[in-house]
Amino acid sequence: MAPDRAAETVFQTPWFDIVAKWDGQPEGGEPYYALRLVDFTCTIALTPKQEFVLVRQYRPAVERKTLELPAGHVDPGESPSDSAGRELAEETGYVGTRIESLGRLAPDTGRASNAMWCFLVPDAVPQGEPEPGIEVVLYSAAELAESIRGGEFDHALHLAALHLAAVTGKLPPWAN
Amino acid sequence: MAPDRAAETVFQTPWFDIVAKWDGQPEGGEPYYALRLVDFTCTIALTPKQEFVLVRQYRPAVERKTLELPAGHVDPGESPSDSAGRELAEETGYVGTRIESLGRLAPDTGRASNAMWCFLVPDAVPQGEPEPGIEVVLYSAAELAESIRGGEFDHALHLAALHLAAVTGKLPPWAN
Repeated sequence: MAPDRAAETVFQTPWFDIVAKWDGQPEGGEPYYALRLVDFTCTIALTPKQEFVLVRQYRPAVERKTLELPAGHVDPGESPSDSAGRELAEETGYVGTRIESLGRLAPDTGRASNAMWCFLVPDAVPQGEPEPGIEVVLYSAAELAESIRGGEFDHALHLAALHLAAVTGKLPPWAN
Repeated sequence: MAPDRAAETVFQTPWFDIVAKWDGQPEGGEPYYALRLVDFTCTIALTPKQEFVLVRQYRPAVERKTLELPAGHVDPGESPSDSAGRELAEETGYVGTRIESLGRLAPDTGRASNAMWCFLVPDAVPQGEPEPGIEVVLYSAAELAESIRGGEFDHALHLAALHLAAVTGKLPPWAN
């Protein structure tokens, strides 16, 4: 960890690394620690009845079941939209004929440099089984809004995707 | 890193730790790695003219200037609302007479167990100087929406706070 190096990987896991950066930090002080994470996708999938396709699953980090949008990591060499379609199908068994880009967001500008790619699948229909351990939940826009107000749907990154969809006019007005 | 331990801190920085968890992981395999981060706040501050008080600053993790809501870590022993008011004043020089809770979100259910506490200050006025290195930017709701669509305002966690405010009816209708 020589202070003349601009950045150094100081801890590695199969899913993310910790990078120490000395640029702009006080001499002799602590480096700035950033997370090196892979890009991921987050998909708003709507059924023909305008229901949101959601996933309920146990999350070890928060030690409880959560209700979220389908999401997952972008594999090496995979495009974000291919990843989004694959994760939607794998997690929920739903597929659509169209996948529309909503945009790219920064998950955490304070610590991470990866991207979250947001998509909309406007015509999702079931074509297979959900992933083991995942329960598929279909909510109307009103039910989703109520679950946000009540704290059941509380994954900030997924609220961000919903807001991006609302602001870009990609959700029907009833869902804003 | 004995596999009979349920969780172990495997890397520490002054700002976050990495925790390895073996519960529910395949025997002899990699542990699940979670981030132990402190709670933070995120504040939507509106001026009497209904402008959003935003901060522009250089962010080492993404290596560029970003446009964000005022935000910061909750200090030990500090309440989230005290933290939000303090960070707003420190970062922007703005203060308000009221601070309303919007709710608690999970910043990343896949990796982290900390909380993001969201607040609204509906009557923010300048009472001091912004923090060195921070530029205060006042945007109307239309300008903020445009900066989200254009990618200038792209911090996902802060879009989440805006969505929470919209869904809970705490933003004026023009801002939804």
